[in-house]
Amino acid sequence: MKKIINTAQTVVRELCEGMVSAYPALLSWDEKYNIISRRERNPEKVVLISGGGSGHEPAHGGFVGRGMLDAAVCGDVFASPSIMQVYNGIVRNASKKGVLLIIKNYTGDMMNFGGGADMAVEDDGINVEKVCVNDDVAIDSVPDRRGVAGTVFVHKIAGALAEEGADLPRVKAVAQKVIDNVRSMGFALEPCTVPAKGEPTFSLGEKEIEMGIGIHGEAGVVRQTLGTAGEIADKIMDKIIADLPFKDGDEVALLVNGMGGTPLQELFILNKEARRVLDGKGIKIYRTMTGNYMTSIDMVGASLTLLRLDDELKKLLDAPADTAAWIKCG
Amino acid sequence: MKKIINTAQTVVRELCEGMVSAYPALLSWDEKYNIISRRERNPEKVVLISGGGSGHEPAHGGFVGRGMLDAAVCGDVFASPSIMQVYNGIVRNASKKGVLLIIKNYTGDMMNFGGGADMAVEDDGINVEKVCVNDDVAIDSVPDRRGVAGTVFVHKIAGALAEEGADLPRVKAVAQKVIDNVRSMGFALEPCTVPAKGEPTFSLGEKEIEMGIGIHGEAGVVRQTLGTAGEIADKIMDKIIADLPFKDGDEVALLVNGMGGTPLQELFILNKEARRVLDGKGIKIYRTMTGNYMTSIDMVGASLTLLRLDDELKKLLDAPADTAAWIKCG
Repeated sequence: MKKIINTAQTVVRELCEGMVSAYPALLSWDEKYNIISRRERNPEKVVLISGGGSGHEPAHGGFVGRGMLDAAVCGDVFASPSIMQVYNGIVRNASKKGVLLIIKNYTGDMMNFGGGADMAVEDDGINVEKVCVNDDVAIDSVPDRRGVAGTVFVHKIAGALAEEGADLPRVKAVAQKVIDNVRSMGFALEPCTVPAKGEPTFSLGEKEIEMGIGIHGEAGVVRQTLGTAGEIADKIMDKIIADLPFKDGDEVALLVNGMGGTPLQELFILNKEARRVLDGKGIKIYRTMTGNYMTSIDMVGASLTLLRLDDELKKLLDAPADTAAWIKCG
Repeated sequence: MKKIINTAQTVVRELCEGMVSAYPALLSWDEKYNIISRRERNPEKVVLISGGGSGHEPAHGGFVGRGMLDAAVCGDVFASPSIMQVYNGIVRNASKKGVLLIIKNYTGDMMNFGGGADMAVEDDGINVEKVCVNDDVAIDSVPDRRGVAGTVFVHKIAGALAEEGADLPRVKAVAQKVIDNVRSMGFALEPCTVPAKGEPTFSLGEKEIEMGIGIHGEAGVVRQTLGTAGEIADKIMDKIIADLPFKDGDEVALLVNGMGGTPLQELFILNKEARRVLDGKGIKIYRTMTGNYMTSIDMVGASLTLLRLDDELKKLLDAPADTAAWIKCG
């Protein structure tokens, strides 16, 4: 394992310190519970809290700021934060307008965010609601679908509506609307290495690709022969498009997301190929994002995400956001 | 070689198409000469043109837009654009206020940007000036120093002054002021692979690090035993700080730049360690940037850059920029 770290045990703490210290005007850090919050609180808005395991940088701390999240609760690498972390994230950031938890669909996250929410409701009388993101179409069984890069759209769009002063039921409803209309799938050319483990999470031959990987180092649902960027885009997009399904005439936002170790030149080529598939099906691209948004440490690979848009979602997607990692859509 | 590409021969053309199509309102593309330009021209400003070999994504096309460059001339991977490409970049983007070329100090770039400038001056009577960026302190001989990540600060600060309507001598002077005050150095844990070559540009053992790498796959000036993030930051920062030298009481912008294959979590840890070194020397960090700005395809490694600031440079660094890849400083 070759990494720019000090010790495997201190990776999460040090990366959080490094992120927060890079944005001193924007972010504050609760070191005890490893919670990254906005430095300037706004008590007049619904509070959005997300998070989960670390290793997905810039998620989730990079999406804390005006127009997106209020706080990110950071677990260990690929491990859910504890109930106490989530509880403290809620009580330390809550406003009188209530709290929405944006949770990715993993057993640990669902249990611990749920448990933290229950404590905050029962002990502190805080109004807490939850949404569960499950955009990964690699998994056929819908209840088992993982939350992956589509989560970033939930942060952005629900965050924009919360910033406008909407109440908790409305913010929750728009978050659910994004979840209902977003689909993703990823692939890997190389696995990632969890610092504390020190070994790659799987191994792949020189001509192999894992299709349908998760964002926690999981191998894909099927191993195939590595083809061209065009062939990869065809397979991934066909699965995504058929799932919702996205149809001729739909308008979408396209997210070409790097998994952490993928050079940007390859993401741009993948974007070109994803556009070709969408153009061929009459699906109109309203906005494009290309870069590292929801990574899996140093995995070499990418995911594609489509979000079907209506006028409300377009407006909220285009609203300003002031965070460390949100880059204006093209 | 495992890459998300179609063919090695079409990588540059396709990545440019993929980048420009991701930002349709911002960028236009001259396919014949591979020039990425702003879609909306402003004839009332000095025009800034940069570029060089491809493989440094998001540089240079990602820095085209209001407040930074007017155009990027894109060569093949790690190869200078031709004189004809540069000449066309100038004549197709020139304004009556003149053109500033921002060139990184490589023989090919200096020759071809220089030749293109001479043609535009002689054949078209365009007022063209040049600056040469040479921020890489890994090379002891100053005339031989390469232009690396510090180039992004030249784009940003000269771009902001040009946007204000300053004339060509003033824009050139501030670009030179940035060059005079910026220093960088990089390192690699793994080499990169040029698509057309198909093999890594060098090989490194499991415990080895190359210190003083370039951004074209060059090995470093010295190979050492891989230490902690703190030890790496100590060595790199000591060399950078001693060179200018940066002194107690100076204010700086710090750029922690990934080389393309480095996970963001490691860049944040490196940021933490670079800050520790600066704090210890009484050098004040005014702004921080952490991410992939000037890469070397999929190299695993990073560079650190310091820019000494005065009030003029601070104001121009903080001015708004609307490009695909500039992320607000923290």
